[in-house]
Amino acid sequence: MNRSNPIKHVRVTPIAFRDGPLLNASGIHEPWALRAIVELETADGRVGLSETYGDEPMLRALDAARPLVLGLSPFDLNAMEERVRASIRPASGAVEFTLAPGSHSAKNAAKVTSALEVAMLDLQGQLLGAPVVDLLGGAVRSSVAYSAYLFYKYAEHVDKPYAPDAWGEGLSPEQIVAQARRMVDLYGFQSIKLKGGVFEPAHEIATMRALRAAFPTLPLRLDPNANWSLATSIAAAEELDELLEYYEDPTPTLEGMAALSRHSKVPLATNMVVTTMEEFRANVHAGGARIVLSDHHYWGGLRATQALARMCEVFGLGMSMHSNSHLGISLMAMTHVAAAVPNIAYACDTHYPWQEEEVVAGGRIAFDNGAVAVPGRPGLGVELDREQLARLHEQYLACGVRNRNDLAQMRKYDPAFSGANPRF
Amino acid sequence: MNRSNPIKHVRVTPIAFRDGPLLNASGIHEPWALRAIVELETADGRVGLSETYGDEPMLRALDAARPLVLGLSPFDLNAMEERVRASIRPASGAVEFTLAPGSHSAKNAAKVTSALEVAMLDLQGQLLGAPVVDLLGGAVRSSVAYSAYLFYKYAEHVDKPYAPDAWGEGLSPEQIVAQARRMVDLYGFQSIKLKGGVFEPAHEIATMRALRAAFPTLPLRLDPNANWSLATSIAAAEELDELLEYYEDPTPTLEGMAALSRHSKVPLATNMVVTTMEEFRANVHAGGARIVLSDHHYWGGLRATQALARMCEVFGLGMSMHSNSHLGISLMAMTHVAAAVPNIAYACDTHYPWQEEEVVAGGRIAFDNGAVAVPGRPGLGVELDREQLARLHEQYLACGVRNRNDLAQMRKYDPAFSGANPRF
Repeated sequence: MNRSNPIKHVRVTPIAFRDGPLLNASGIHEPWALRAIVELETADGRVGLSETYGDEPMLRALDAARPLVLGLSPFDLNAMEERVRASIRPASGAVEFTLAPGSHSAKNAAKVTSALEVAMLDLQGQLLGAPVVDLLGGAVRSSVAYSAYLFYKYAEHVDKPYAPDAWGEGLSPEQIVAQARRMVDLYGFQSIKLKGGVFEPAHEIATMRALRAAFPTLPLRLDPNANWSLATSIAAAEELDELLEYYEDPTPTLEGMAALSRHSKVPLATNMVVTTMEEFRANVHAGGARIVLSDHHYWGGLRATQALARMCEVFGLGMSMHSNSHLGISLMAMTHVAAAVPNIAYACDTHYPWQEEEVVAGGRIAFDNGAVAVPGRPGLGVELDREQLARLHEQYLACGVRNRNDLAQMRKYDPAFSGANPRF
Repeated sequence: MNRSNPIKHVRVTPIAFRDGPLLNASGIHEPWALRAIVELETADGRVGLSETYGDEPMLRALDAARPLVLGLSPFDLNAMEERVRASIRPASGAVEFTLAPGSHSAKNAAKVTSALEVAMLDLQGQLLGAPVVDLLGGAVRSSVAYSAYLFYKYAEHVDKPYAPDAWGEGLSPEQIVAQARRMVDLYGFQSIKLKGGVFEPAHEIATMRALRAAFPTLPLRLDPNANWSLATSIAAAEELDELLEYYEDPTPTLEGMAALSRHSKVPLATNMVVTTMEEFRANVHAGGARIVLSDHHYWGGLRATQALARMCEVFGLGMSMHSNSHLGISLMAMTHVAAAVPNIAYACDTHYPWQEEEVVAGGRIAFDNGAVAVPGRPGLGVELDREQLARLHEQYLACGVRNRNDLAQMRKYDPAFSGANPRF
């Protein structure tokens, strides 16, 4: 019996890694992206891993969760979840971005549950000799398809903290096509998504047209990140209907999406108006979003993602997957759960190509034809490279970033940048 | 890796066991209740068990599912579920009882999925050395509370096929109180449910009053099995509000339950208008049922029951558990899943005290204070007694019952019995 092997140590290591000057509705990515690496160690010395948000409120929530998981068996997922729900509350004083669900402290219990659950499942898999996907009912696909996630971007960060990345400037439609070409060449992606909400809608639609011309057979998506008014979104819908696989969060609020849905032929997708079970319920009544972009990091874990998938099926909604800047432990967790969910019918989002660093042993995870193979090794199938972990933790200590703030970063380029939303 | 250990044999054994002359809205239980015992055997000779319906349409559906599971790993639950959904259809010519969701052939895919999933989880647990509850996220309670499930009944079956049972006649309020006393004394139950819809509502309400007087502290439930009109159900609601923990399926149809809900202070529970995910969705929109009586046998298995539990939580519904006549393998599956579901807040239904026979080694499963302990042994924690299995299969072959038919059975007592529903 494994019940005699309780969790004895909880280690949370905040890390920072280089991130490109990627533009979005909130502003621009800072030169350092934050994550936290969670290690749960059992009495017999096994280590279960997970990767989650690394902002200060999340670090405090993880710290508060420490006594809730110490002494539990790695199999006590339900008990852990009950304890976290009872104890972990929204934080006060959190730096939150409406546009980034992962920053919402109201989701603290779900975020902490997820961070602990993934590490506990990794431990279960190691103890049982089974990959995590087998603990989720087994793989319905042997690899998980991801999409090329394009960004408008500058060539270099304002402060020039390190050498420019290899992607160059990405502002014009031609530059975005070149970015897409490079990403498809390097990774083999079979779907393309552009993060929009940055420039005038006409420019972004022109970019989508250029992508359509360059990649006539690949499904395309545009995500204006709720930075378009309802009127703008409706006006754009007719042109976009011909171009898009789905139309992601063009306009804010559930009501806005519901109103827009009556004008859009392609389904509306969201990771902004359906980000919790409560919002799922509201969307069932209001309509609007037809595709939910899941994200185990804030939905409450891999099992909650499976429950969300069953709920999407019951209520006739499609399912895809959202991402933030992340490294390989998150990529593996996303891959295991996506492999176990029959109705994830779209290539999942990932920021992974924008990162160059890694904390997993063996370095960067390989993509084949835009997909990541589901590992057959026990647990998540990745181990820590402790030298890299220490190095990225040093970067965290040195970089000075403690909460993601794309707005303040943008004001370094443009002091007049309002960040008002929706801007177009 | 366990993937090299595929399922090589599928055995389905129909059995019949003695069942009491229990009265309900459809008529009366026949002297023999049918079940099917499903065995999945892996290449290395391990046997996973489940127990399900034993009527002919279900036996045909299980037979059709045989090639879908042969060759799969016991970990391929998602793949099995996809295959069953794609292949197993509602049967034609099935004998169906509106009042018995387990007889609905529209649920064939969910019923077959459940039968295979439970046996595959039993195999997983044996292979991994873990109890099934640990494969469902671990126990949030060490034992599962069941309710005393009372029935109006005759002392003996019309055909006198075997000696009368020990429970005697149960027609008057006093006799039902005596039945409850015996059942509580023998099993320690802490909640009481009466199957109603048999006699005039005034008689059944008088029975509930007698139970309240005899057991002043135990929660009480009445299940008229949709045999009361809406008007009758509304008229009874005021009296029952003071007596009941929940008011179970008094009146037919979702619309009827929704209309009744505006007149009932205690929540309405159902295993009749919310029996599938589609009906769950309809109830979300129509309202009415506030407590769903789950049943893994027709909801699609233990994992589907967990998904249902999360959905109940999201949509503010309570959760309890329904049963049909069953033996110990079903009782163990019910116990494992109920132990893993935090929001099963009511004692679960079980017909188990009405059965005397068993197919599990060691014989009848023990109750302590009305609860069944969650086994810590690998898998479901029960093995077959092959002598008893053979004996109950012989009873199946000899008894002549092939489809449950409470209506035809009742007409042996009363040729004029209409079976019309609702009758009161």
